[in-house]
Amino acid sequence: MTASELISFARGAPSLDIIDVEGLKAAADAALTKDPGAALGYGTAVGYLPLRRHLAEQHGVAENQVLVTNGSMQADAFLFDRLVTPGAPVVVERPTYDRTLLGLRQRDADVRPVSLQVDGIDTDELAELLAGGLRPTFAHVIPNFQNPAGYTLSLAKRKRLLELAEQYDFVIFEDDPYVKIRFAGESLPTMLELDEGRGRVVYASSFSKTVAPGTRVGYLVGPAALIDDIRVAATNTYISPNMLAQAIVHQFSIGGRFDAAVAGVNAALAERVRVLCDSLSEHLPEAKFTAPEGGYFMWVELAGDVDVAKLLPAAEERGVTFVKGTDFLLDGGQSTMRVAYSGVRADQIPEGVARLAAALGALRG
Amino acid sequence: MTASELISFARGAPSLDIIDVEGLKAAADAALTKDPGAALGYGTAVGYLPLRRHLAEQHGVAENQVLVTNGSMQADAFLFDRLVTPGAPVVVERPTYDRTLLGLRQRDADVRPVSLQVDGIDTDELAELLAGGLRPTFAHVIPNFQNPAGYTLSLAKRKRLLELAEQYDFVIFEDDPYVKIRFAGESLPTMLELDEGRGRVVYASSFSKTVAPGTRVGYLVGPAALIDDIRVAATNTYISPNMLAQAIVHQFSIGGRFDAAVAGVNAALAERVRVLCDSLSEHLPEAKFTAPEGGYFMWVELAGDVDVAKLLPAAEERGVTFVKGTDFLLDGGQSTMRVAYSGVRADQIPEGVARLAAALGALRG
Repeated sequence: MTASELISFARGAPSLDIIDVEGLKAAADAALTKDPGAALGYGTAVGYLPLRRHLAEQHGVAENQVLVTNGSMQADAFLFDRLVTPGAPVVVERPTYDRTLLGLRQRDADVRPVSLQVDGIDTDELAELLAGGLRPTFAHVIPNFQNPAGYTLSLAKRKRLLELAEQYDFVIFEDDPYVKIRFAGESLPTMLELDEGRGRVVYASSFSKTVAPGTRVGYLVGPAALIDDIRVAATNTYISPNMLAQAIVHQFSIGGRFDAAVAGVNAALAERVRVLCDSLSEHLPEAKFTAPEGGYFMWVELAGDVDVAKLLPAAEERGVTFVKGTDFLLDGGQSTMRVAYSGVRADQIPEGVARLAAALGALRG
Repeated sequence: MTASELISFARGAPSLDIIDVEGLKAAADAALTKDPGAALGYGTAVGYLPLRRHLAEQHGVAENQVLVTNGSMQADAFLFDRLVTPGAPVVVERPTYDRTLLGLRQRDADVRPVSLQVDGIDTDELAELLAGGLRPTFAHVIPNFQNPAGYTLSLAKRKRLLELAEQYDFVIFEDDPYVKIRFAGESLPTMLELDEGRGRVVYASSFSKTVAPGTRVGYLVGPAALIDDIRVAATNTYISPNMLAQAIVHQFSIGGRFDAAVAGVNAALAERVRVLCDSLSEHLPEAKFTAPEGGYFMWVELAGDVDVAKLLPAAEERGVTFVKGTDFLLDGGQSTMRVAYSGVRADQIPEGVARLAAALGALRG
């Protein structure tokens, strides 16, 4: 590793070494051998039918409740186009994914952030807001290994959120791309499952983290009528999503390599988290953080006197980068940062953290 | 062929026999062997960089004038989002692609159809409208083997359109997915080329007709500032288009099989047009049509007493289908139909036309 090589804690993307390239070659060959007509034809806006069926089975829903899209952000965009009314309130977690904030603000939603705790969104705070008259169209929640915080919503809070959604008649948008990237602790049921078909939950996930981002395959699960509305919008936007990539992802998913690939990703990420926590304790003892049980991200809080807007350029001068916590908030968070460990090798992490510590030291003079 | 097998003159899509499936397998393997990082990573909204570069070279423009999208309809959608102002006039050909009409009307454009002649849009009619005060934002033109008519815009009219665009300050949206699917006559320069960098033309094309629709790879070429605006919108919609499919299409395009594949498509389509014209002359002598020099479609005009809205169900009862001409028009065209020969084998065509003739005979009692 040369001093000039940038170590990026900014990239929320897998490094190439945790992508099963050989498995994808075999899946591409299988897709084009077994089903060339559908993999290469126009298809329809619901997505590649065998993949849609596979997802419906996986989530225990009817096929007409599933729509496969060009990545899950495209799914979000379609959903926001349907559900967001300018000026109407929408609940988000504080902090939350910056692109979600952007998508909501571009559609003139009245964005209402609710505090995120280590066990997920503060349902008491939300209940108080609802009791006080807030009537959101939906609440956007990233339940597992949240982006940017890495926190996971507890089972009790999942149930509480569903109760509140029922009581105050709002939709829960369960945005769950990291669900399978769990390397510690126990899996929790999705709110989609807990809802038991009452139609309170729209669920989105993706193969970006389990297969590869470049396949751009995401999906939505929701009430059939909403999914059908989105199907019409998708047809008018692009006729159909990428049939070839979806057929490849389908072959990869049903082949023997999927589980092994995910296990490989998770083992690598678990090691990175361990090294990251150790390095932070060693070089940046003031840093406060909770080791995530999965996903790509860790939220790090520095002492209150640190301004990350000044820390970031100083860090980049020293060959390390991250994303400022303020990017994930409408206000506050000046001393926080999102540290992504998905795009770095474990052996880069100690040096990256040492560079961060050096930048912080220089800033304090 | 059984009597119950539907013969579809409706599908504007290639039959599987004219897609180079083996070539695509090799291209997928090459993409994942030579450039797995970019083929499987997030990439950016401009598209897979080597493909973007390849297209820029092919069109003789700078790379920052090209944006590769998830199919060219997605490119249209981004462009319409930028250029269409509710209530502002937009010129289209009469008839034109039904999805273009839908996209414009959904954005509340004031759609102004101008007659399409065998040598393309009626530039005299357009000039008169412009002289009379029409000030369109842009004119949407499908210059080669138009959908639905199959007609091609002459060189003289291409030049005249550019003069009018310059004089009256509007953009030409040159929508050109069929340009390489020429099997008779001589290729004409694009308006993008004839414009010589003056920025009057935004050009769209696709690999759906040369490689396969299921790859969903289309692209836009235009002024750098406009392309950059669309890049931002695309980033906010889906981060990046399908990197895997674009890397596969790129390998296919630079490999030795692209030209042979296109030549194979064109030879097959030329034969289908010959059989179609012969069959129409034999079974439906009243039909008026111009044999296209390329593309997927032929416009057929029946006697004025025929109502295609009644002919279509009678035809479908007999196992043949097509698209009514009225679908491509805001009004008129009751005796016209779009006959697509891209999705049928040559040996199905005589039987399909015979069924059409039988349906017409039954209608006339």
